[in-house]
Amino acid sequence: MSAVRFIDVPNMIRWVSSRGVEAIIGEMAAVVEEDFRRWHEFEKTPRIASHSLTGVIELMPTSDGDIFGFKYVNGHPNNPLGGLQTVTAFGMLADVSSGYPVFISEMTIMTALRTAATSAMAAQHLARPDSRVMALIGTGSQAEFQSLGFRALLGINEVRIWDTDPAAMAKFAHNARALGFDVHEASSAADATSGADIITTCTADKVNATVLTDAMVGRGVHVNAIGGDCPGKTELEAAILDRARVFVEYTPQTRIEGEIQQQAPDFPVTELWEVIDGSRPGRTSPEDITVFDSVGFAIEDFAALRYTCAAVEGTDFYTHLDLVADPTDPKDLFSFAVGSGADRPVVQAVHG
Amino acid sequence: MSAVRFIDVPNMIRWVSSRGVEAIIGEMAAVVEEDFRRWHEFEKTPRIASHSLTGVIELMPTSDGDIFGFKYVNGHPNNPLGGLQTVTAFGMLADVSSGYPVFISEMTIMTALRTAATSAMAAQHLARPDSRVMALIGTGSQAEFQSLGFRALLGINEVRIWDTDPAAMAKFAHNARALGFDVHEASSAADATSGADIITTCTADKVNATVLTDAMVGRGVHVNAIGGDCPGKTELEAAILDRARVFVEYTPQTRIEGEIQQQAPDFPVTELWEVIDGSRPGRTSPEDITVFDSVGFAIEDFAALRYTCAAVEGTDFYTHLDLVADPTDPKDLFSFAVGSGADRPVVQAVHG
Repeated sequence: MSAVRFIDVPNMIRWVSSRGVEAIIGEMAAVVEEDFRRWHEFEKTPRIASHSLTGVIELMPTSDGDIFGFKYVNGHPNNPLGGLQTVTAFGMLADVSSGYPVFISEMTIMTALRTAATSAMAAQHLARPDSRVMALIGTGSQAEFQSLGFRALLGINEVRIWDTDPAAMAKFAHNARALGFDVHEASSAADATSGADIITTCTADKVNATVLTDAMVGRGVHVNAIGGDCPGKTELEAAILDRARVFVEYTPQTRIEGEIQQQAPDFPVTELWEVIDGSRPGRTSPEDITVFDSVGFAIEDFAALRYTCAAVEGTDFYTHLDLVADPTDPKDLFSFAVGSGADRPVVQAVHG
Repeated sequence: MSAVRFIDVPNMIRWVSSRGVEAIIGEMAAVVEEDFRRWHEFEKTPRIASHSLTGVIELMPTSDGDIFGFKYVNGHPNNPLGGLQTVTAFGMLADVSSGYPVFISEMTIMTALRTAATSAMAAQHLARPDSRVMALIGTGSQAEFQSLGFRALLGINEVRIWDTDPAAMAKFAHNARALGFDVHEASSAADATSGADIITTCTADKVNATVLTDAMVGRGVHVNAIGGDCPGKTELEAAILDRARVFVEYTPQTRIEGEIQQQAPDFPVTELWEVIDGSRPGRTSPEDITVFDSVGFAIEDFAALRYTCAAVEGTDFYTHLDLVADPTDPKDLFSFAVGSGADRPVVQAVHG
């Protein structure tokens, strides 16, 4: 038997509760940064998307030559109306040399952690070092994770929030205050962004919305735009991009899915890894407006899986799945399959 | 909790032992044929392949608009040297309307079943109806499944075998005789193919090999070529293709991966679904040489998963995975993740 390590939802919750969200995001961000720094080692491809009337299902594969990883993830903006999550996900790592799966995990929670880790890591490179106040437009599933990420990496403790759903605002305010945040429940997006050093947009509507208008973005602001992440789904007024220096994960994917789908195909962007490895500048002055036009990229999930797999090693936060048929005689799959292999006792017929 | 039905390796073995390989292949072939008949309803894309020095890892997604499915599969020809399977796989189905996963299964055994189901179903449409003898070149993991598939659908009971590995030949001969087959252990590929009505090639070497030469293929023969299935991996002498009528699954993928990678990009082929739905002819005379240049396509895995999921419904051949984080308040993923959600008792910190 070739056992695959497996983290299900209850074990993920146990691990997150035990280790702590802020600690995990901090450690995960370091691994995401490490993998962005060795960008050229990865196979990169835009994710494979299957669009339907209600949402999108995507596969996001990558490989560094030693480990292959992918994530299954959906995005269904109307799911909450039926009591379901907008985004759910799971993912796996495999050994490139044998092709055998080695690790499978729930990634609904892990995706929220890795998105926060990536956002905060990018802001460390792009936001003004003296940033103290974050505006948060959209207070759904990702909001608390984003806030904790920015506190872990940038020390942000003051959050100004806005959401069109009052219940979602109340939910966030309750959770965030319990976590020690100074929360301002704004009366509008304009109110929320007033005086903010960093603006995070994380709304879910699958439309070309204008969550953030040009007038809301003052000089020196860093915009962490994470909600515009598929074709026809944007959050920023295009004029913001014209005034800003725009940073992306993987250009071919972001041109299709990001805020820059509103711009010409040659709109100038810098890939974040180039800033991290020092080959291109990030913020050049305290007056710059920087935009991280984030859509989520496979290398972030790879890093999150790699970090988590290592972090839980030797703990009881995972179990094993018997997912890989592995007969003693590799060419005698048949005997194995019918339960008559030398390595497995004959299975009695069971009628269900 | 949104539970995902799950068939692991032991449960797959229990089900296969209980239901029987021949019965399963017969039923699965009908579902594969059904899905080929509604070909236009599916999203089709060549599989996404990650190649390394030792093998290939592939993701094979498709969707019919109601159900999304994909398979993870590797191909590592040297794995058996280390006691590992050349091909392992797992796959899943999801509900397109919500994006939620509903079914996950081991697919190492299931892939052998679906490949046999597809091969035999294709041969029903392409081989001479009076076919009685099959030559089998390559007696590895797929060989017994192929034989049972051809017996289930075409009544083939006489098999002439050849493999460069004598142990693999002995293994097959032992297994097949126990299953009631009339087995001739040939002294060469030419000996094996002598007098055969159907020739199945299923070898694993990732090279441009000539497992089958032109001289071995007489008039009226149906060639079921399943081993040549990735770039640089072929089994047939190109001259066979020039004399034959060639049938493929999905042309854009087969031109890259199949036997016809040896031919010009406009080499004429017929897609199998066109024969099934009657829009194009299959075999036109008893003299035709027909070649099913099979590389394996996502719709076959979709059909295999769909059939299996339905076939085990209500039995004890599956369990459940808690893979989808599904808080009562879909926008309060955070409380759920740290174990303080209303729908889940607070989780005690556990130090591993």
